Amino acid sequence: MELKILYKLSYGLYVVSSKADEKFNGQIANTVFQVTSEPPQIAVCINKKNLTHEFIQNSKTLAISILSKDTPMKFIGHFGFKSGREIDKFKDINYKIGKSGAPIVLDNCIGYLEVEIVDQMDVGTHTIFIGKVIDGNIINDMEPMTYDYYHNVKGGKAPETAPTFLREEKEVKKMDKYVCTVCGYIYDPEVGDPDSGVKPGTPFEELPDVWTCPVCGAGKDAFKKEA
Amino acid sequence: MELKILYKLSYGLYVVSSKADEKFNGQIANTVFQVTSEPPQIAVCINKKNLTHEFIQNSKTLAISILSKDTPMKFIGHFGFKSGREIDKFKDINYKIGKSGAPIVLDNCIGYLEVEIVDQMDVGTHTIFIGKVIDGNIINDMEPMTYDYYHNVKGGKAPETAPTFLREEKEVKKMDKYVCTVCGYIYDPEVGDPDSGVKPGTPFEELPDVWTCPVCGAGKDAFKKEA
Repeated sequence: MELKILYKLSYGLYVVSSKADEKFNGQIANTVFQVTSEPPQIAVCINKKNLTHEFIQNSKTLAISILSKDTPMKFIGHFGFKSGREIDKFKDINYKIGKSGAPIVLDNCIGYLEVEIVDQMDVGTHTIFIGKVIDGNIINDMEPMTYDYYHNVKGGKAPETAPTFLREEKEVKKMDKYVCTVCGYIYDPEVGDPDSGVKPGTPFEELPDVWTCPVCGAGKDAFKKEA
Repeated sequence: MELKILYKLSYGLYVVSSKADEKFNGQIANTVFQVTSEPPQIAVCINKKNLTHEFIQNSKTLAISILSKDTPMKFIGHFGFKSGREIDKFKDINYKIGKSGAPIVLDNCIGYLEVEIVDQMDVGTHTIFIGKVIDGNIINDMEPMTYDYYHNVKGGKAPETAPTFLREEKEVKKMDKYVCTVCGYIYDPEVGDPDSGVKPGTPFEELPDVWTCPVCGAGKDAFKKEA
């Protein structure tokens, strides 16, 4: 059994948000899919430990903001690796309140869906929520971010061709990759961290001391060399 | 409300298969996703009318064959637009029988997963099956087919750049697109049907009489001009 085949399933990348009284929260999710067309219904799978899970269960609504391919890592990290129990994730974010009362993220968003929860299923660590679509709109015609693109392009793994080209053309010394022990992000020197202005070819050791993980914001000392 | 935003959700493309006594069946599905990692569990959403649904419900197992990006339209049409009540879909197909007893498609497949159904949820026209992964393997390192790629590239819509180039360079007469009334496939003359040897630039009217829909196999007379 080779469980790595699970990585070959394809997904998009979304901010799933909900509300509780006057509070909002949202998180990154990849498991959003349409389950019926008549009526249009969506399934969303959320970890029970997350604050968004609590909000969805209480308010029976959620909004899905579909992220664009150009979404910066930092933005994904903001919603994906921080907890709404500690910070207000919607502070300094452009959003609007949807028909459902849940916040719709407008930054880096190509469109959204709002659903009213009609059923849910306990699958262990997670709950699958089934929602009837009550609103949805297109914001722009940019391409959606896919989970694959996030991992293989944005996540620091270089396209297969690029490192080969570098090695052959310039005989660069193989530089070590470093893994963030907080969120799993991999700093690949051959890719750099363009979102933060770090050019491809920058070894981890030469990153400025103020540099932080583009995903979760952890400092350089939270990184260790990839085995 | 603009329901077209539903097209911006991202999916892969799979053959979901199951068994009943000595019979096998499989169908195309895009709604396959991992719902938990401990233990590894998968959700699959299947239309209640489909024979595969009946087989899954009875045998409590299913296999997921992950299709490669190069899968021909005809192959997708074979599993996606024909019914196992009328033909044996596994005749002339390379497959192996998995641990679950379900058939794993080997043609155009980059890897597979087998699950044992542990729960299911009625969502109206469809059922969401939850399965615990009992086996899975990588077959090759080809890229997986995505639903987006199937629709926008394979489905006959030309890349945005191509038609513009043709119009400007050659001032070609705008050729009509034709829609298959059986399966919805669109024949776009600017794309042709390369899987069947029809070159880009071939008007529908010039297709040979024996030409059939690359997806569902319907004849030319099942097509009508796109409005």
